[in-house]
Amino acid sequence: MITRILPALFAAVSTAAIAQPAPPPVQLPSYVAALRDAALKDDLAWDITEGLTTEVGQRLAGTEAEARARAWAVAKLRSLGFANVRIETFDMPVWVRGAESATIVSPFPQKLVLAALGNSGATPPEGIEAEVVSFDSLDALRAAPDALVRGKIVFVSHAMPRTQDGSGYGEFGAPRRQGPSIASRKGAAAIVIRSIGTDYHRNPHTGVQRFEDGVAPIPAAALSLPDAEQLQRIIKRANGQPVRMRLVLTPRNIGTRQSGNVIAEVPGRDPSLPPILVGGHLDSWDLGTGAIDDASGVAITTAAAKRIMDAGRPLRTIRIVWFGAEEVGLYGGIDYMKRYGGKPHYAVAESDFGADRVWRVKTRLGDARKAEAAALRRALLPLGIVPGAEDEGEGSDITPLVEAGQPVVELSQDGTHYFDLHHTPDDTLDKINPEALRQNVAAWTTMLAVLSGGLEPIRRPRR
Amino acid sequence: MITRILPALFAAVSTAAIAQPAPPPVQLPSYVAALRDAALKDDLAWDITEGLTTEVGQRLAGTEAEARARAWAVAKLRSLGFANVRIETFDMPVWVRGAESATIVSPFPQKLVLAALGNSGATPPEGIEAEVVSFDSLDALRAAPDALVRGKIVFVSHAMPRTQDGSGYGEFGAPRRQGPSIASRKGAAAIVIRSIGTDYHRNPHTGVQRFEDGVAPIPAAALSLPDAEQLQRIIKRANGQPVRMRLVLTPRNIGTRQSGNVIAEVPGRDPSLPPILVGGHLDSWDLGTGAIDDASGVAITTAAAKRIMDAGRPLRTIRIVWFGAEEVGLYGGIDYMKRYGGKPHYAVAESDFGADRVWRVKTRLGDARKAEAAALRRALLPLGIVPGAEDEGEGSDITPLVEAGQPVVELSQDGTHYFDLHHTPDDTLDKINPEALRQNVAAWTTMLAVLSGGLEPIRRPRR
Repeated sequence: MITRILPALFAAVSTAAIAQPAPPPVQLPSYVAALRDAALKDDLAWDITEGLTTEVGQRLAGTEAEARARAWAVAKLRSLGFANVRIETFDMPVWVRGAESATIVSPFPQKLVLAALGNSGATPPEGIEAEVVSFDSLDALRAAPDALVRGKIVFVSHAMPRTQDGSGYGEFGAPRRQGPSIASRKGAAAIVIRSIGTDYHRNPHTGVQRFEDGVAPIPAAALSLPDAEQLQRIIKRANGQPVRMRLVLTPRNIGTRQSGNVIAEVPGRDPSLPPILVGGHLDSWDLGTGAIDDASGVAITTAAAKRIMDAGRPLRTIRIVWFGAEEVGLYGGIDYMKRYGGKPHYAVAESDFGADRVWRVKTRLGDARKAEAAALRRALLPLGIVPGAEDEGEGSDITPLVEAGQPVVELSQDGTHYFDLHHTPDDTLDKINPEALRQNVAAWTTMLAVLSGGLEPIRRPRR
Repeated sequence: MITRILPALFAAVSTAAIAQPAPPPVQLPSYVAALRDAALKDDLAWDITEGLTTEVGQRLAGTEAEARARAWAVAKLRSLGFANVRIETFDMPVWVRGAESATIVSPFPQKLVLAALGNSGATPPEGIEAEVVSFDSLDALRAAPDALVRGKIVFVSHAMPRTQDGSGYGEFGAPRRQGPSIASRKGAAAIVIRSIGTDYHRNPHTGVQRFEDGVAPIPAAALSLPDAEQLQRIIKRANGQPVRMRLVLTPRNIGTRQSGNVIAEVPGRDPSLPPILVGGHLDSWDLGTGAIDDASGVAITTAAAKRIMDAGRPLRTIRIVWFGAEEVGLYGGIDYMKRYGGKPHYAVAESDFGADRVWRVKTRLGDARKAEAAALRRALLPLGIVPGAEDEGEGSDITPLVEAGQPVVELSQDGTHYFDLHHTPDDTLDKINPEALRQNVAAWTTMLAVLSGGLEPIRRPRR
């Protein structure tokens, strides 16, 4: 996922709950529990995750790898028996990584490990050499006189704490999102930040940033946490001597390319009813194979939809979207919004926070559906999922829809370890716990069983 | 550390214990416990480890970085007040890493992460492309007909288990040590192995291998575990289609260069008595900063010797050796053996198995010193160190001395997590637990306090 903070592209519709008496309980059909329990033996989500990460691997938005991923997705979704499988294309600007290296020239010569941030500017092929000027927070950089920064390589060592719900990412991700523009405005030669991550492996965390209008792009990269702390130690032990770094970053903007969303459906018995949208994103960052970000998300939601489809025909259409180009700017979510945002959805929900267990459910279904929301909470409890807020929910690609007031369900995954892997070379299949993945499928199957409006005819769920 | 298996360069002298009545207990001076407890507050080992890994960083044997490390060591040992600080040089052949990349060309195009093994042959700069032929063990490779292997890139996926005492490394490290020669004899174009390691990060484990006499060097590299398992999945999902890899490895042999051992002493009151040798190795592999392998080893043993020196003058000389060029073939240990191996040592002991807690003590001090060995075991128990074998002990650089029959003490570190980091980019300072490092210093201080033959005058240990 990229940041949850998005410019207010679309007007928000308030659906805040007003205090009301408790609704009468909704009786859940018996198949809900049966489908939930059967899903705990799911193998399809693993197969999709393994297949996409193995047969395609990394799939940076707008590249031929993402196009191969779309072809893979279409073939997979068709083979699973979904209807209306299609690609909806859109154009987008594409940035690709080049060479990247950082070397401390003096006083303690050594290499450091880093990775360019999305939309980073480039150095000449031979690199640049400059003195490092260090700040322990973005505020300290903001407050620095331009003269202190001009011509230097800015280093921001600001650290993000580990949280279960990822709530640090908005605030503590600021050095990545805003640091490059601030440094450029002050005349910096380049900026390197401590990775927005929580692990101590030599795998830097990339991620998107965008230079503000009128700001000249400068080289911008993230050091792995061990390297960021090494640079802090080098500066400390240099004891006032200048620390000089040679930085080589040669990414390129390769112009406008095509991306697209892959869409498939389980047709509802009543096509006039608003659909339920579930999905994740198909693209990944280029360093890992995008296993937890977000092959697992498309796999979980697709496996759940498949279980509903195999169990019977739902009243409402279930629409599965494997969004394109999420990581680099929510292009897929914005394209979907343009095409479908004006039409009502019964609910929108996205899985894009890894592959660890779902621990909480949040909803914003509106006052008229309080009983349904309560039934959903009850149905999820046997999976160890606790009730969360009843007036909010979020996702990444669905942000424009959520901001426009569409009803939303959020099945919150435990993110305690998410930022150990997020946007690093380490986002690979081996990091996924198959049992946790199955619990996710069970949660999503349960949600779809509750919200899809009754299945007919009911066949026994396959075990 | 490199392998504990060394060609029998030196004749072994048997000192196997013969069953005897229990010796009368040795009364330990009271300062032993005081020194042990004070060492649990040690900061010097951390300072040395941090300093060496920060101010020098990686220090591949025979390179200018290792020379800088020797200069750093001499300055540090002199500033600590040790006597007879000196460098004893020797010449050695030097191999250095070049470019390295692996790309699956078909059927599922993607990059894999690997690192060349020591003494690997080189590909042309543009690389080679060949079909991958996979073996799940070294025996399977040995048994394969040459025709199956000729012109191909051999892949050995054999996995090493995690153990507390590192006992899997000898046996399970065989694909690294012997695989390249076996593959070359069969006409392979190159060999890639699953890293000899236990972690799942995209940081390959390098390590030395040596082509047997008369065997042509071929490119040889290790995939990280996630990449090795990815390659296994690619082969499985290719479903019989050939899997083709492009491999670029451009290491070079740069000829004979100088390395050296750095030696310092705490002079004993009786210089005619055999010294106690303690130490670790100064060189490191080039991918990390050599924090646990083996900055911590030289730091722990030096900090312990410093504590004895500050507490009083020992009867026997304590000789600290920071061995050079261990990783690439025990050159420092062999040089020391040539210079000093013919002279008796009171004990030899090395710290080269990481920085986790010492959990066991092994000794081979001979039958006449059973009471002393028992006293040492008693003195170490309060640190949670259990008694181990009384007729064996090992180290890396000290292997020639041990094989020649010199008395040895082994303070065994917990190696459960050692092979997560060993020889990878991830061997960095942040992996060291300061409390465990202090426990090591306490163990080594205790050992020196027991074996060094009485301190005069006793000053209160500094806290």
